Amino acid sequence: MGKNEKVAVISTGMTEFGDLYEYEITGIANLAIYEALNNLHIKKEEIESLYVGNMGSHLFEGQENLGNLIATYAGLTCPAFKIQAAGASGAVALRNAVKGIQSGSKELVMVLGVEKMTEATKQHEAQLALASGLDTNWETRMGATLASLFAIMARAHMREYGTTREQIANVVVKNHYNASLNPKAQYKNRVRVESVLRSKLLSDPLRLFDACALSDGAASVVLASEEVAYSYDSDPVFIYQIKQGFAPIALHQRESLTEFSGTKFAAEKAYRDMGITAADISLAEVHDIFSIAEIIAIESLGLVEKGKGGFATENGDTALDGSIPINTSGGLKGRGAPLGATGVAQIIELFDQIKGNAGDRQIKDIKYALAHSMGGTGGTSVVSILGR
Amino acid sequence: MGKNEKVAVISTGMTEFGDLYEYEITGIANLAIYEALNNLHIKKEEIESLYVGNMGSHLFEGQENLGNLIATYAGLTCPAFKIQAAGASGAVALRNAVKGIQSGSKELVMVLGVEKMTEATKQHEAQLALASGLDTNWETRMGATLASLFAIMARAHMREYGTTREQIANVVVKNHYNASLNPKAQYKNRVRVESVLRSKLLSDPLRLFDACALSDGAASVVLASEEVAYSYDSDPVFIYQIKQGFAPIALHQRESLTEFSGTKFAAEKAYRDMGITAADISLAEVHDIFSIAEIIAIESLGLVEKGKGGFATENGDTALDGSIPINTSGGLKGRGAPLGATGVAQIIELFDQIKGNAGDRQIKDIKYALAHSMGGTGGTSVVSILGR
Repeated sequence: MGKNEKVAVISTGMTEFGDLYEYEITGIANLAIYEALNNLHIKKEEIESLYVGNMGSHLFEGQENLGNLIATYAGLTCPAFKIQAAGASGAVALRNAVKGIQSGSKELVMVLGVEKMTEATKQHEAQLALASGLDTNWETRMGATLASLFAIMARAHMREYGTTREQIANVVVKNHYNASLNPKAQYKNRVRVESVLRSKLLSDPLRLFDACALSDGAASVVLASEEVAYSYDSDPVFIYQIKQGFAPIALHQRESLTEFSGTKFAAEKAYRDMGITAADISLAEVHDIFSIAEIIAIESLGLVEKGKGGFATENGDTALDGSIPINTSGGLKGRGAPLGATGVAQIIELFDQIKGNAGDRQIKDIKYALAHSMGGTGGTSVVSILGR
Repeated sequence: MGKNEKVAVISTGMTEFGDLYEYEITGIANLAIYEALNNLHIKKEEIESLYVGNMGSHLFEGQENLGNLIATYAGLTCPAFKIQAAGASGAVALRNAVKGIQSGSKELVMVLGVEKMTEATKQHEAQLALASGLDTNWETRMGATLASLFAIMARAHMREYGTTREQIANVVVKNHYNASLNPKAQYKNRVRVESVLRSKLLSDPLRLFDACALSDGAASVVLASEEVAYSYDSDPVFIYQIKQGFAPIALHQRESLTEFSGTKFAAEKAYRDMGITAADISLAEVHDIFSIAEIIAIESLGLVEKGKGGFATENGDTALDGSIPINTSGGLKGRGAPLGATGVAQIIELFDQIKGNAGDRQIKDIKYALAHSMGGTGGTSVVSILGR
């Protein structure tokens, strides 16, 4: 952050994630918007700007201009617009909102992440929508899918570091377990390693249970400057850092298949600017769009040693009672992955954990908490660090 | 602006607008990006962030995640993302970039507006893409199109204020004339009132020549803080104000058919915060997506008296040698309207005018210059004020 001003999260709202067939996208948005407003009796006139993170309303539903649409149907009359960075849309919207506050705003801003993916009536429509986040010319049109690209990363990680198929499956087992303790999660069923390994093959070595499902949902946070925050909350949760890192969009353009270089860049910059190290992070929400992504993410973030992500997961280090709990919410895999909403939902999980409101998922003695969101196969990475 | 810090435009780049069939969208983007960098020998490493304004690459070309894609193919390695607000996408991207600088950045940021619309092989694909900026449920699915909604506004303006069909056509005549003096314009042919009135009927009373064409193009600007700007330019052009106004997305939800209330709100706020009035504006670029929109815009901006927009156009008040020249570039109508690029192209026209580099279109004695960009039928409005 330029002036290193921390920005407070003062209220949050979130729908259950899943198949919300009874709501239009504006209805889903309203549930999250009004939960965040009503929690602190914030009037809608107090919201200065609405930042909407969304991956593909145009692709899933033929509706663009989503900022203006959602503001209209929420009864908000403030500036509103959409930010798109594939799976990182919500996190990038958050980063711009933080800069909006830091630019000198003395009012409140709202970030809404929202996606309605189950509207796509045919499976291939949804797959095409997801594939639009890849390099259309050099990946999608050559036959690559999200699953096949992450499968390449999984194979490379297994070869380079001896990571086993079972270790990768343990990410799924852990995240389903955590989701079973999260009332808003899409999947509350626990799974075993054997169920993952016996599920339908998507792209060798990745199987159906290694992937996120399509999901509907919305998540919103209200942000304020430090000065303003204390009039709403005597002990606010702050976003200390929010950094964005770059990697080339297509997998074949990158130097390594087993590292998210943009994630590493953003995390190291965040730690450095705060004067902390990865060891000061008590828990993290990471972008587990496929199981293998969580393993590569925790290594790239420096939370576990490079090459040891699979072993750490198998050993239970990343479990709720482990040394560095990862995806206590259930992650994209267990909690659900309405794409634009995921980056904001991560912030809500960290907020609840820091406030001590995470119920059966509660982690003790939190120093700092980290959120990691990605677009595509890692071309965009956003790393945020929260704390009191 | 929160801290009321002005932000400098230090360099610009723009393609010709039109049918750029020989380039991919990334190629079009590169032309504008590298013109802006090369003009001042700016190294690409000096760019801290890339803000991409684009309406519909997913709809026109099946490609999303455009920020990451364009950064990759431009060889930029900075944070990049897309901002979408229908026709105002470029202007909203600019507004966020201004806030990015105001948040304390000591580096350069680039705003790129880009659209490739001629890739849509069938006319109805392009129309569906444009219609995605309307309220899908309550406008598009009921049969409304952009043209029919602006036709309703035209009828209402004619009834309420006695505006004539010929006066509206004069907008087109003027903007084609101005475009004929602009080397980068799509349409360099001059037209007469009779040609407009004899062109194909789109939606009564609007005809083909009242509408913008599909267009490809890109426009980019490099922004810097006031402090940083002077090391690049001893006499910089500043963005003094950039305000965004809201109106409900659908036309039937608005109080008036003959005013852009969000435009009025944003303009009045900008004038007030600067301590000026509309009389201090020497020229303006406005969002003439249909001819009637220019008439309503100049009234809503306070540049002409309410109801007098048609008469002012007919009298020549808005011509190059008039009292308040409008769309000296040729506007969306004459210069071309690659949607995401238009909001940035407006800033480049004002920059050139203020710098005295507008060639045969040059306006003398400029105090302040205004840009007005809209999304949809006016649900989103952005008003910027530039000067030395």
